[in-house]
Amino acid sequence: MIKVGIVGGTGYTGVELLRLLAVHPDVQLTAITSRKEDGLPVADMFPSLRGRVALAFSAPEKADLSQCDVVFFATPHGVAMAQAPALLAAGVKVVDLAADFRLKDQASFEQWYKIPHTCPELLEQAVYGLAELNREAIQGASLIANPGCYPTTMQLGYYPLLKAGLIDAGALIADCKSGVSGAGRKAEIGTLFSESSDNFKAYSVAGHRHTPETAAQLQRFTEQKVDLVFTPHLVPMIRGMHSTLYARLTKEVSNEELQSLFEAQYKDAPFVDVMPFGSHPETRSTRGSNMLRMALHRPGNGNTVIVLVVQDNLVKGAAGQAVQCMNLMFGLEETTGLTQIALMP
Amino acid sequence: MIKVGIVGGTGYTGVELLRLLAVHPDVQLTAITSRKEDGLPVADMFPSLRGRVALAFSAPEKADLSQCDVVFFATPHGVAMAQAPALLAAGVKVVDLAADFRLKDQASFEQWYKIPHTCPELLEQAVYGLAELNREAIQGASLIANPGCYPTTMQLGYYPLLKAGLIDAGALIADCKSGVSGAGRKAEIGTLFSESSDNFKAYSVAGHRHTPETAAQLQRFTEQKVDLVFTPHLVPMIRGMHSTLYARLTKEVSNEELQSLFEAQYKDAPFVDVMPFGSHPETRSTRGSNMLRMALHRPGNGNTVIVLVVQDNLVKGAAGQAVQCMNLMFGLEETTGLTQIALMP
Amino acid sequence: MIKVGIVGGTGYTGVELLRLLAVHPDVQLTAITSRKEDGLPVADMFPSLRGRVALAFSAPEKADLSQCDVVFFATPHGVAMAQAPALLAAGVKVVDLAADFRLKDQASFEQWYKIPHTCPELLEQAVYGLAELNREAIQGASLIANPGCYPTTMQLGYYPLLKAGLIDAGALIADCKSGVSGAGRKAEIGTLFSESSDNFKAYSVAGHRHTPETAAQLQRFTEQKVDLVFTPHLVPMIRGMHSTLYARLTKEVSNEELQSLFEAQYKDAPFVDVMPFGSHPETRSTRGSNMLRMALHRPGNGNTVIVLVVQDNLVKGAAGQAVQCMNLMFGLEETTGLTQIALMP
Amino acid sequence: MIKVGIVGGTGYTGVELLRLLAVHPDVQLTAITSRKEDGLPVADMFPSLRGRVALAFSAPEKADLSQCDVVFFATPHGVAMAQAPALLAAGVKVVDLAADFRLKDQASFEQWYKIPHTCPELLEQAVYGLAELNREAIQGASLIANPGCYPTTMQLGYYPLLKAGLIDAGALIADCKSGVSGAGRKAEIGTLFSESSDNFKAYSVAGHRHTPETAAQLQRFTEQKVDLVFTPHLVPMIRGMHSTLYARLTKEVSNEELQSLFEAQYKDAPFVDVMPFGSHPETRSTRGSNMLRMALHRPGNGNTVIVLVVQDNLVKGAAGQAVQCMNLMFGLEETTGLTQIALMP
Repeated sequence: MIKVGIVGGTGYTGVELLRLLAVHPDVQLTAITSRKEDGLPVADMFPSLRGRVALAFSAPEKADLSQCDVVFFATPHGVAMAQAPALLAAGVKVVDLAADFRLKDQASFEQWYKIPHTCPELLEQAVYGLAELNREAIQGASLIANPGCYPTTMQLGYYPLLKAGLIDAGALIADCKSGVSGAGRKAEIGTLFSESSDNFKAYSVAGHRHTPETAAQLQRFTEQKVDLVFTPHLVPMIRGMHSTLYARLTKEVSNEELQSLFEAQYKDAPFVDVMPFGSHPETRSTRGSNMLRMALHRPGNGNTVIVLVVQDNLVKGAAGQAVQCMNLMFGLEETTGLTQIALMP
Repeated sequence: MIKVGIVGGTGYTGVELLRLLAVHPDVQLTAITSRKEDGLPVADMFPSLRGRVALAFSAPEKADLSQCDVVFFATPHGVAMAQAPALLAAGVKVVDLAADFRLKDQASFEQWYKIPHTCPELLEQAVYGLAELNREAIQGASLIANPGCYPTTMQLGYYPLLKAGLIDAGALIADCKSGVSGAGRKAEIGTLFSESSDNFKAYSVAGHRHTPETAAQLQRFTEQKVDLVFTPHLVPMIRGMHSTLYARLTKEVSNEELQSLFEAQYKDAPFVDVMPFGSHPETRSTRGSNMLRMALHRPGNGNTVIVLVVQDNLVKGAAGQAVQCMNLMFGLEETTGLTQIALMP
Repeated sequence: MIKVGIVGGTGYTGVELLRLLAVHPDVQLTAITSRKEDGLPVADMFPSLRGRVALAFSAPEKADLSQCDVVFFATPHGVAMAQAPALLAAGVKVVDLAADFRLKDQASFEQWYKIPHTCPELLEQAVYGLAELNREAIQGASLIANPGCYPTTMQLGYYPLLKAGLIDAGALIADCKSGVSGAGRKAEIGTLFSESSDNFKAYSVAGHRHTPETAAQLQRFTEQKVDLVFTPHLVPMIRGMHSTLYARLTKEVSNEELQSLFEAQYKDAPFVDVMPFGSHPETRSTRGSNMLRMALHRPGNGNTVIVLVVQDNLVKGAAGQAVQCMNLMFGLEETTGLTQIALMP
Repeated sequence: MIKVGIVGGTGYTGVELLRLLAVHPDVQLTAITSRKEDGLPVADMFPSLRGRVALAFSAPEKADLSQCDVVFFATPHGVAMAQAPALLAAGVKVVDLAADFRLKDQASFEQWYKIPHTCPELLEQAVYGLAELNREAIQGASLIANPGCYPTTMQLGYYPLLKAGLIDAGALIADCKSGVSGAGRKAEIGTLFSESSDNFKAYSVAGHRHTPETAAQLQRFTEQKVDLVFTPHLVPMIRGMHSTLYARLTKEVSNEELQSLFEAQYKDAPFVDVMPFGSHPETRSTRGSNMLRMALHRPGNGNTVIVLVVQDNLVKGAAGQAVQCMNLMFGLEETTGLTQIALMP
C-alpha cells in the first residue's frame, strides 16, 4: 500500500483527492494537514465522507509527512515550494496541484505569481504531469507539477495540430469556460450563489496565469513558437470545463485526415476520448470522472479548425490527473482507482 | 418629491431598494451611505444601475441624512437603533428593514439577537410594517419595523384562519423554503455557488429568529395564543420564498367557506393574490414583483388545511414592502412605483 | 457472473442502473431493451458511458430476456406486470422499479394508477424491496417491488418512532422536496430548464401516489394505523431528495433516548447514516451514492419531533436500492458495487 | 393608444411581449391568438400576469387583427409570411420576431430555413429592426424584421471596427453563449432541467442560421465583405447572452482610440452601454432590461481586439427590441415603456 499524505485538505481539490483516494485499492490515507482545522475529523467538514474516511486534520507540525510515500499539495501557490525540498530529501515523492513548479522559467513564474520562487533549483527536476504528452518522464519522476485545469484542455486539444505543423502557431484563440468550483472554496462575494448563478461573464481577459503555462509547454512539446489568446469565462455550474479552441489551417488537409490524426495520437490514452467528427461534447459527460472528451469541427469546410474539449475541472483538471500521475510514478496501471463513470444526469 | 436616504446600500436589500426607488415617480434619491465604499459610484458596484443611478456612496458622517424626508436602514441588526432617535427627533421618518424594532418585548429581542437594545423607549412607538394587517397604523407612523421575509408569508397565510377561530392555534407547523439571496451579500463559504447549488437543506431547525416575531405578531393581530413550529430551508435559487403552512381545523367548515374567507380578507390588498382553491403557486410568478400569492389545499378533505404562500423575498419580503410602507406614510397610492410584473421565465 | 437484463433503459433510472451495473464486479450486462431505439448503441445516447458500456438497445422481441438471471424494469407503470409472469415462469428474477407491485391491495392500485392490474395473483408473492425493514424477505424473493423514492425516506424516517409507539400515528405530516430528475426523462414543458430553474413549487398536494404506498407499508411494518399528510415539492436541482418529517410525541422521551432508538435501529444498515442529534443533512452529501442520511430535531424541546432525511432519488431512491436488492437476492454482500462516495462539491 | 395584436403568445417571446406591453403607457393590448389555447385567459397560463392582463387567447380566425395598429408575430418561422400581406394591405403595421424577413436574399432564406418563401416581394420592403444602425428606416417602416438575438450582439459589437476599416473582415470569430430560454418553450428532452442544468456545451457548430443573417447585414451596413465563424453555446441559465467577439487589427490604433470610436458610435443609443475599456460585463446586469452592454479588451496589447457584449436574449434580443421598433414606428420616444432596471441579484 502506498502511504499518502495530503497538505491542505480543506479545499475542493483536497476533498476531491479524498474522494478518489478513499476507494483507491493501493492507497492508505496516512495524514492530512490543516493548521486551522487541527483535530477536526475530515468527515465533520465533508459529510459525504462519513463512514468512509476516518482521518482527522492535523496541524502541519504534528503530521510526520516524511513517513509517507507520496505527498499531494492541494494548497495555494507558494506552499509546496517551501516544503518540497525536505520531503524530497527524505525520499518522499511530491505532487503539487498548485503552480509552484509548472513554469520552468523562474522570472516568468515570479512575474505572473507575484512571489519569489524559493527553490528554483528544483524547477528543472520537476516533471510536468500531463501523462498523455509526458508519460515516460512522469514514470521516473520524484516531483510532479500537476497541470492547470485550462492548460490541460488547451494542450491536449492543440497538440496534434501543432505537432503535425498544420496550423498557424502564432494565431491560436482559446475561448474557455469553467464551472465555479474552479475558483476554489474561499469566502468571496464574487462566487456566492446569488452572484454567479443565472449569470455568465468573462474574467481576466487581459491576462491569465494559464496563458504562459500553456504557451510554454506547447512550445516544449512541439518546438513551435506559440502565440495564444486565452479568454476564460465563468459558467453557472459546479464542475465542468469546456474549451473552444480555434486555429487557422496552413496546409491542405481533409477532415478525415484531421480526425485520424487525433485518433492516432490518443489511441493509447485511457482518459482521452476522441469523439466522432462534428460531435458536441457536453461537460456533464465527464462529471465526476477522469475522462476528457474532444471533437473536431470545421465550419463551412473553411480554413478554421475548431477543437471542442470537455473535462471535469476537479478530476482530469486537478485531483484525478494527480492520481493518474501517482499511478505512473508507482508503476501501477494508469487507470487504477480512476474508473468512475460520469454522473448523468 | 420625497427625499430618500439609504443607510447600508451595499447589500441585497439595499440594491433592491435602489432598483425600486430609481423608477419611483415621487422619490428623489438623496443619499446612500457606506463607510467602506465612501466615494464609489453606486453604479460601479452594481452595473445594473449604470445610467440610472448617479449617486455615489458616502461615509455616514458626510451624508446629511437629516435633510431627508425618510431614511431606510438596509443594515445589519443594531444599526438602526443607534441612529433612529436622532433622525426621528429631526423629523425624519425611518423604515428599518432589519429587526431592531420588530419585537415589542425587549427581553425577547435581546435573547434572540444577542445584543442589548439601545432605545427600548421606541419599541412601543414603532409600527409593524405589514400593510395588509396594519394599514392604518402605518399611515400615521414615523418609525416602521419592516417585517421579516418569512414572517410576512406566515402571518398573511395563517391570519384569516386564526382570526376566524377555525384552527388549533397551538399546533401550527410552517415548513418554509427560501432562495439564497435571503442569506445576504456576505463573503461566506456556506452560500458559495459550489456549496449551495444543486443542493437542498434545512437550517436553524432548533430555533430561528423569525419564530418569535411571527408568533408575537399573530397573537397581537388575532388575540390567540400561538404555538408555532417553523422550519426554514435553503433552495438553490436566487430569489423566491415558498411557505407550506399546516394547520388543524377545529370546526366544521367547507372548502368554499375557507376560500371565501381568504378572498374576503384580501380583496382590497393590491399585493395579495388569493389563487383558486387547489392551485400550486410558483415562486417565479412573483420574481422581481411585490406580489404575494397564496392558495388553499385540504388533502383528502380531512382536518388538515394547507396554505401555500409565495413571494419574492427581496421585494414583498423586504425592499418592496418597505416602499409600500413609505407610500402609505406619505399618503401616496399604495402601489406607486411597485407595479413591476414578475419576470417569467 | 449474474446475467442482467434491463427493460426500458432510456430513462434516468435506466441510465443510472447502467452506471452502477457497469462497474459491479459480479454482473454481466446482457441485454437492454427499447423499442424506439432498437440498434442504437447505449453510449450514443449517453456519452458518459462511451468506452464503458458496449451494448446496444434492442427491440423487446429481439432480446431473449429469459436467458438473464435477473431483469430490471425501468419502465412506466404497467409494463412489468405484463412481462413478469413469463419471466418468473422461466426462472428469471424480476425487480420492478415502477409501482406495479408496490401496493398489495389491487383496488387501491387501480384507484391510484388508473389502470387495471393484469396479474393480481403476483401481488402477494411480490416482496417490497426496502432492505432496511425487509431484508430477510428480499433474500428469498423472486419478484421485487422496488420502493418509491419518497416512500423510502418516509418509511425509514418514521419507522423507529412508530414501532416504539412514541408518536401519534394519526397525525403525520411529511413535507418532502425532490430534485427534477424525479420527474423522469420525458419531453414536457413543466420540467424544462426555463420553467423549473430558479423556481420552487409544491405539486400534487391534493393527493400523490406515494401516500398510499407509504401508509400501507408503514402499517404492515409497524401494525399501527397510519394517517399521513404528504406534500411533495419540486427543487431546482437535478438529483436529491429531502424529507422533513413531523410527528407529535405521545410519550415522555428524552432526546438521548430518541437518538439511541434510531442508532440502534440502523446500526447494521450499511446505507443508513444516523447523524448526530440536531444535524442538518444536505442532499449533496448523498449525490451519486446509495447512502441515506437522517438527523433528529426537537424544536424548543416540545412535543414535536422532526426527522430530516436525505438521499439521492436516483440511487437509494431508485437504481441503487434495486441493485441492493439484487445483491441480497443473489447472496452477495449488500454493498457490492455500491461503494461510490458522494460527489461534493 | 396604439392597438396591439400578438400572434403566437404562448412562447417565451410572447409572454415577454405581454410583460412589456402591459405596462407600456401608450399601448392597448387588443388581441392575442393561439389556436390551441382558444378561450384560455392568458393569466391562467402565465400566473405572473394575474391581475395585470385580462385578455384570453383566441383562435386566429376569431381575432380581427385588422383592427389593430400593429401586430407582433411571436411565432415559428413561416407564420408571419403567410399573414403579413393581408395585414399590411389593411394598413396594419407588422413586426416579425421570427426570421421570415431577416434575409433579403430569398435563396439564402430557403437554404437555411428549409421552407419556401411565400411573399418574396416583401423582402425588399421589410426593414431590419436594429435601431442602433437603422433608426431612420425603422421610423418609416410598415414591416419590421426583428433581428435575431445573437446577430444583435455580433452586429453592434463588430460594426464600429468594420465601419472604421480597422480589422480584417475576413477573419471574424464570434464565440457566443446563450441562456436556455433561447431554445423556446417547447417540450423537448434536450432542454429539460435535468439535461441542461449543471452542463455546458456548444451546438450547431457546423452552421447556424444566425451566421448568414449577421454576415449579410454587416455587409449592408459597412460595405465590407465579411467572413464569420460563429460558435453558439448553451449556458445553464434562463436568460442572458454573452458574445465574445474576436477580430484582428489591420491598422495601428491605440486603445484610447478604440474606446473613443465605440463611445462616439453609441453616444445617442439609449440601450447600448459602452463600459470602460477592460471591463467584464455580466449578463445579469441586463436581466429583464432592454440594455445591451459591451466592453473592449486587447490582450497583451497585441493585434487581437476582443469585444465582450451582453444582453437579455428575451428583451434586447427579442421582445424589447421589437417594442423599441414599435416606438420608433409610431413616433414615440424610443425608450417608452422600456425603462425597467435589470434584476440584480
